[in-house]
Amino acid sequence: MMISVQEAQGIILKGIKVLGPEVVKLENALGRALAEDVYSNSDIPSFDNSAMDGYAIRAEDVRGSSRQSPKALEVIGDIKAGDVPKKTVKGGQAMRIMTGAPVPRGADAVVMVEETEKPETRVQKPELVKIFKEVEKGENIRKAGEDIKRGECVFQKGARLTSAHIGLLASLGQAEVKVAKRPTVAVLATGDELIDVDEKARPGKIRSSNTYTLLGEAASCGAIPKNLGIAKDDPGELAKKIRKGLGCDILLTSGGVSVGDYDLVKDVLAGIGTDIKFWKIAMRPGKPLAFGTIKDTLVFGLPGNPVSSMVSFELFVRPAILKMLGQNDDKGEVDAVIGEDIEKKAGIRYFLRAITRWDNGNFVTNTTGPQGSGILKSMALANSLIVLPEEVEKAEKGDKVKVRFL
Amino acid sequence: MMISVQEAQGIILKGIKVLGPEVVKLENALGRALAEDVYSNSDIPSFDNSAMDGYAIRAEDVRGSSRQSPKALEVIGDIKAGDVPKKTVKGGQAMRIMTGAPVPRGADAVVMVEETEKPETRVQKPELVKIFKEVEKGENIRKAGEDIKRGECVFQKGARLTSAHIGLLASLGQAEVKVAKRPTVAVLATGDELIDVDEKARPGKIRSSNTYTLLGEAASCGAIPKNLGIAKDDPGELAKKIRKGLGCDILLTSGGVSVGDYDLVKDVLAGIGTDIKFWKIAMRPGKPLAFGTIKDTLVFGLPGNPVSSMVSFELFVRPAILKMLGQNDDKGEVDAVIGEDIEKKAGIRYFLRAITRWDNGNFVTNTTGPQGSGILKSMALANSLIVLPEEVEKAEKGDKVKVRFL
Repeated sequence: MMISVQEAQGIILKGIKVLGPEVVKLENALGRALAEDVYSNSDIPSFDNSAMDGYAIRAEDVRGSSRQSPKALEVIGDIKAGDVPKKTVKGGQAMRIMTGAPVPRGADAVVMVEETEKPETRVQKPELVKIFKEVEKGENIRKAGEDIKRGECVFQKGARLTSAHIGLLASLGQAEVKVAKRPTVAVLATGDELIDVDEKARPGKIRSSNTYTLLGEAASCGAIPKNLGIAKDDPGELAKKIRKGLGCDILLTSGGVSVGDYDLVKDVLAGIGTDIKFWKIAMRPGKPLAFGTIKDTLVFGLPGNPVSSMVSFELFVRPAILKMLGQNDDKGEVDAVIGEDIEKKAGIRYFLRAITRWDNGNFVTNTTGPQGSGILKSMALANSLIVLPEEVEKAEKGDKVKVRFL
Repeated sequence: MMISVQEAQGIILKGIKVLGPEVVKLENALGRALAEDVYSNSDIPSFDNSAMDGYAIRAEDVRGSSRQSPKALEVIGDIKAGDVPKKTVKGGQAMRIMTGAPVPRGADAVVMVEETEKPETRVQKPELVKIFKEVEKGENIRKAGEDIKRGECVFQKGARLTSAHIGLLASLGQAEVKVAKRPTVAVLATGDELIDVDEKARPGKIRSSNTYTLLGEAASCGAIPKNLGIAKDDPGELAKKIRKGLGCDILLTSGGVSVGDYDLVKDVLAGIGTDIKFWKIAMRPGKPLAFGTIKDTLVFGLPGNPVSSMVSFELFVRPAILKMLGQNDDKGEVDAVIGEDIEKKAGIRYFLRAITRWDNGNFVTNTTGPQGSGILKSMALANSLIVLPEEVEKAEKGDKVKVRFL
């Protein structure tokens, strides 16, 4: 039973719930997803303040002012940022004010310092300032609540926190923030041929790259990766190592899910009680993929080919992790002009590793070379996947194709 | 002296050298930049192996095979993945072979199992397999060195390591990897009006958001952030706290770099020996920006307005960090259709916070609303900046404009 990419994604995402919340310190919240809507308990800024260094005045007092005929106002004091002004600006008066300082009572505008003549310092009062320009009511004043109003919903549940979010939460006085827990993702590579990165090379053996690509991908999505190492093609050992991953939210295996006599993973998963929903997807690379659940753990039996397992992760595991985090998968597709001819089989969705760049008003895309599913270098070079849908039989140089960035 | 954005970037980047290397474990190398070219010390894969489960045969033996007239070959053994085949396939012979297993001597192609009839298990020899299809020499064989050849330069110095890179380094047996050191970035907010996120709100005071946006931005670029807290507008305190950042590669201050009487940061920086190269850039937001060096520390006196300081970071500090990491700043600009009219002053480069999305074959961009430099929410909502160059005087709805993604 071979199902489409879309059907497979639908089946996987259907049962997933957002993980419960946890409270983290603001400085540790970067990249996390909000577990609740955030409302503001105050106006931001919380008081009218000056957007400029200059003089707080009454707009009506400087009507008609110009370089040629300046108005002179009496300076009754200074307001620095952080001060609380105690005086009131009355007709004919001004107060010197710094950027960010509260606008004093009575004043309704600020004239920037460059449009004034600094009064000479002298012992005698009154100190006078000449104003060279008319201003409108409200000019150069940042109104209380201009950025955010008290009671406003500032960010919605599921928002992924960037540094701008973190800064705004700091403005609101949120030293802690409630975010969705990070899912744990266990990774188990399988196969008698596999050795680990630090083992001595031996004839017939290859180093497990999937262990490291999958741990890296899980971390990149915001999950907590857990390395279960390598299991031999032995049902007992497989079952034992798979069980170690069942405390995690997601268990990934790689290898052993094809039709071969030694492709044991699917059988072992079924044997320990996995409810396997499907195990073949109409795509290239990545056809074999056993997906199921065992208690609360999502189990993905990914293919052993390095590229197949990475593309499968991108299309199926990544959206699952993001859904657990309460985030939407924000990756859309763009259109690009393809620079080469591609032959394909109808009925199967192709994902070609590609370099896509913006060139003179269009995206232009080219494959990274040979597309064998063992060729990991093609994936390291790529910044994108060219997506050729099921019904397409070929793409020709100059055609518009869909591209998904990695 | 007001200089252009490009001049400012040139001055900042000119003196920067890549930081020295350090060795990290492969599993900790995600996101780091290579400090040296990586060459392969072996072919990947290191031996010819089967891309399919099937039978390793000699292509000439199955010439003319079809469903109607299959050829029968003698099965002389099994090769599992991880095995080292000891037998040689001679004329009329085949060996059962699993995906990833080494191709035996004598064989020059693999027929996939679906194109054969599985021999009945029987005690008598010889065991025969029927082959239903012709194959070409080399078919279904992954050749040694197909992905990477021994001695090949696999990745170049400066490459930012993604999970595909990490996987490929694992294939090469690199349990450790030499990467560029992460720069340290100290952040000091300044201003009598500032209180920290966990302090009690007081009249005239605002919470320092820049502390958290700048720490977050530094971490996002791959630097190690260090929080120096808040300094009052007092020359002695400022000098003392600034000195605490001088062991770092980069020191960021925010606030106190305008023309006002209490904008002390520039003077204090100069007073403790900073060689200030410029302090005004023809841009909006973000005009005031004091840049200089003191011994080996790059010092950026960023503006105090939350949006100005973030945009300044993006344009000037980020490229500096990436250069220290040995990475190129890979952010290009794309063209987008703007959805509204924008007025601007000639001679100044504008950066408008915007949401840009792919819509029906084009990027379409709209500002996030009011663009006041205190309005941090506009930055949190944005995924991009609309860049309007110096010479432009306005943009009209429907015009093509340049956009830089954040």
